[in-house]
Amino acid sequence: MLSSKVSGTIKIALAQVNFLVGNISCNVDNIIKTANAARDDLCAELVVFPELIVTGYPAEDLLLRADFIEEANNAVHRIAECVDGIALVIGFPEWSEGKLYNSAVVIHNGVTLACYRKQSLPNYGVFDERRYFTPGKQPCVFEFNGTFIGLTICEDVWQEGIIAANKEAGADILLTLNASPFNLGKMHQREAVICSQVKAAQLPLVYVNQVGGQDELIFDGASFVVSGQGEIVYRAEEFQDYLGLVEFTDNLPIPSTCVPLDEKIAGAYHALVLGIKDYVRKNSFSGALLGLSGGIDSALVLALAVDALGSEKVEAVLMPSRYTSDMSNEDAVLEAEALQVQYHVVPIEPAVNAFNAMLADVFAGTKKDTTEENIQARCRGVILMAMSNKQGKLLLTTGNKSEMSVGYATLYGDMAGGFAPIKDVPKMLVYELARYRNSISPVIPERVLIRPPSAELAPDQVDQDSLPPYDVLDPILERYVERDQSAEEIMAAGFSYEHVARAISLVDRNEYKRRQSPPGIRITTRAFGRDRRYPITSGYKGIK
Amino acid sequence: MLSSKVSGTIKIALAQVNFLVGNISCNVDNIIKTANAARDDLCAELVVFPELIVTGYPAEDLLLRADFIEEANNAVHRIAECVDGIALVIGFPEWSEGKLYNSAVVIHNGVTLACYRKQSLPNYGVFDERRYFTPGKQPCVFEFNGTFIGLTICEDVWQEGIIAANKEAGADILLTLNASPFNLGKMHQREAVICSQVKAAQLPLVYVNQVGGQDELIFDGASFVVSGQGEIVYRAEEFQDYLGLVEFTDNLPIPSTCVPLDEKIAGAYHALVLGIKDYVRKNSFSGALLGLSGGIDSALVLALAVDALGSEKVEAVLMPSRYTSDMSNEDAVLEAEALQVQYHVVPIEPAVNAFNAMLADVFAGTKKDTTEENIQARCRGVILMAMSNKQGKLLLTTGNKSEMSVGYATLYGDMAGGFAPIKDVPKMLVYELARYRNSISPVIPERVLIRPPSAELAPDQVDQDSLPPYDVLDPILERYVERDQSAEEIMAAGFSYEHVARAISLVDRNEYKRRQSPPGIRITTRAFGRDRRYPITSGYKGIK
Repeated sequence: MLSSKVSGTIKIALAQVNFLVGNISCNVDNIIKTANAARDDLCAELVVFPELIVTGYPAEDLLLRADFIEEANNAVHRIAECVDGIALVIGFPEWSEGKLYNSAVVIHNGVTLACYRKQSLPNYGVFDERRYFTPGKQPCVFEFNGTFIGLTICEDVWQEGIIAANKEAGADILLTLNASPFNLGKMHQREAVICSQVKAAQLPLVYVNQVGGQDELIFDGASFVVSGQGEIVYRAEEFQDYLGLVEFTDNLPIPSTCVPLDEKIAGAYHALVLGIKDYVRKNSFSGALLGLSGGIDSALVLALAVDALGSEKVEAVLMPSRYTSDMSNEDAVLEAEALQVQYHVVPIEPAVNAFNAMLADVFAGTKKDTTEENIQARCRGVILMAMSNKQGKLLLTTGNKSEMSVGYATLYGDMAGGFAPIKDVPKMLVYELARYRNSISPVIPERVLIRPPSAELAPDQVDQDSLPPYDVLDPILERYVERDQSAEEIMAAGFSYEHVARAISLVDRNEYKRRQSPPGIRITTRAFGRDRRYPITSGYKGIK
Repeated sequence: MLSSKVSGTIKIALAQVNFLVGNISCNVDNIIKTANAARDDLCAELVVFPELIVTGYPAEDLLLRADFIEEANNAVHRIAECVDGIALVIGFPEWSEGKLYNSAVVIHNGVTLACYRKQSLPNYGVFDERRYFTPGKQPCVFEFNGTFIGLTICEDVWQEGIIAANKEAGADILLTLNASPFNLGKMHQREAVICSQVKAAQLPLVYVNQVGGQDELIFDGASFVVSGQGEIVYRAEEFQDYLGLVEFTDNLPIPSTCVPLDEKIAGAYHALVLGIKDYVRKNSFSGALLGLSGGIDSALVLALAVDALGSEKVEAVLMPSRYTSDMSNEDAVLEAEALQVQYHVVPIEPAVNAFNAMLADVFAGTKKDTTEENIQARCRGVILMAMSNKQGKLLLTTGNKSEMSVGYATLYGDMAGGFAPIKDVPKMLVYELARYRNSISPVIPERVLIRPPSAELAPDQVDQDSLPPYDVLDPILERYVERDQSAEEIMAAGFSYEHVARAISLVDRNEYKRRQSPPGIRITTRAFGRDRRYPITSGYKGIK
């Protein structure tokens, strides 16, 4: 146990930064730059960076490379040599005696004051930390200018006991380094859980979260400071780089700016915009393009892309067929014009006709079925990919989560592309997001919001020929996919056998399509991809 | 500690079975049938099944479903009620007091004699057991007809100490339930590690492994029995269902059949055949089809598919373009004929011309580049997928691991398909496998084996225009991808900067393609997919 500290003030900077996974040398430069700014511009005495910021999070199997780990450990020495006059708390993968730890090191004027090893390693949902790290075994409290400061990392503060253990170990203030990914409502949940634990332990806490998009994950930032009474006394902006400051007097945080949290729909929209922006930027694409059908999904993706990248970096392609309604063509043009996006019109009939003729012999005597619909979708895929290849622009797919769930999409057709922004957005939420966007400025024609959705791959086709209505389908999917409910539980909640059976059997049998879909932005508590890992080969039937 | 047993004999059956993941009710039926056969046909007193056999392995996130776990736990009761006169040792996911264990239960005449919880949960490579299971804490030895038998599960016997702990706990014989996946040389490694531990502990061991293909994984069977002196005294066939028997007298196993292990190349070939066979069968495809180019890769995949499924279930499609050589067309026909496979010829020019014309305006003023090559590959993808959709046949892709590593493949083109049999087979090994297959009966024309590989997407194109020679590329890739070596280490082994830089930079930047490739059969120690998990968005550069 450490003795109680002398009173005084301490200024702590919160470095809510957006770094690139894997680019250690660049991350080190940015850490040094940020620390100097915290010292010079904010007069901070200590600056806290997010979890594993040296490598970025999650670095996945890069963490298994000896060269990568060596570089990350050397990086800490380089930072120590380059920054003076401010203490830094930095997350990095610590290599020690043949083991790897998810650690937070405190450096001050070239000296290491403390190094804490994360105790609680999440290995569920999108997290695989047990794959890489050995857990630490004890709390770590260090003295800095007379204040005793405890260190924790992300999952630690979600567990019972670790905050209290820091209090017992003599901490006056607790720092938490995080790479806590966004999902709908996550910020409220995060603050509720942590404030309640802080209140129980009466230990003020500084929570610093990473921000930015990394493949499927969005880190929302929204770093905050909680008083020992469990009140939020400071909150940084969501979805933005931010260098904040909080001052403690006699270990009490002085209340300052509390940027309000986004409402649910606005938060989802901002997360999607950040996801597109960072995927394009961090992967060095010159821009993005997409197929614009006149339907609601591509209309929303176009708006998101323009809000993320600017009109001049986005291109739209209209690819009508004989089944495309005039209304769809008109609406697509209106959308492109409203967002001032360059668009091309490439009718697909010549290629479709060519394939049908080429396959006439092979298909002689067979009936038309979804094969012919898929050919149309795949011709569009070929056109879009050709334009992507030629221009170096990222092809965005426009499928939503409801479609991904039930496989209502064509592999290598409308599923072709490098990134799937609304892959984790259920159809009903697509409508809400479109209305939200229109409330800022009208960019999606009203009739796109009200007419029945259609893939337009056959005459007079609408989605509800094949699927339950979306306002029934979406809640069934949410229960089955996100909450792992059984068919019995879902029916007990009031859904019909027919609808439940249809939805579940489609989800079960379309894993193979999802496995080949591009990554998309996770906004729910259970996204397809690293979050929901199902076998393709499976005899499991959610509905008997 | 248990007291020493009375002497006598015990007959133990090894149920090396091939079940379907997720199909619990069917697996239960098969367990009952197999146990009855062990009792009636082999006079066994005890039958040992593989790890988690009730659900199949790996069941992945099905293990997070409460309905699935409940069904699996009920299944054990059903088996207990249905089998008499023989003891069963069964792997199942045990749900107890809010925790899930990877357990082995011993049932005899309706009574549970013992239940062991796996202590060592692998969470590396292809394994994610910490995602699902809580580790057990102690060994479990039970008495059966006067013999004290210890229980272990898979990873347990790879760890120091667990075999010895069973000996200390009084075991006379140790049973090990396994779901141990194949890779090249794995059987030898497995036997070497386990025999050495067994010898140290002087405890005879019965090792029962699952067999069959499950998405990317092949389980090779090759169940065996080791004497207390560390000698293999029994070995079942590899890659086949097998119900074996070993008799112990005074706790000494009586030596019997030892089927020799396959040589490396034969083992790889048999693994690939089993992988295709099980993927097609377990996913209920009516057969398989593939594009036959006249090159070595598709020639090998055709031979594998025919050996797996029979000629009548396999179909080949030749899709020549203006760049396809006569030699390629001739060789493709010879291959189809040698294997008595139905083939179609669908020239791609009409579709290619249609796309080029459709894109002429959009591409006006640009130069020809790989875009035009990709269009050709994607036209082939559309044709093959249309045939797959129409007939319900699985489309096999024919790309090898060297290509997958460096991205020498077209997304949605030659990468289109449901299963990629040789995705984890480096090019040089493709040649060895082709020669191996020809040594059984000649099915691949000799000149396919000797002429320079070419994608034939441009005039006079050969792979080595873009890539280092395969006999240089493959060992570089093996070091970088499988062994995580740095560029410096690889160059220190004698490879040139130029070759290393080219190979590594291509591997680094093609993660996005691999992420959308179909699953394929893992045969190396590090396959792309669940085994090597890299971020797409990444600033890591293996070569600076």
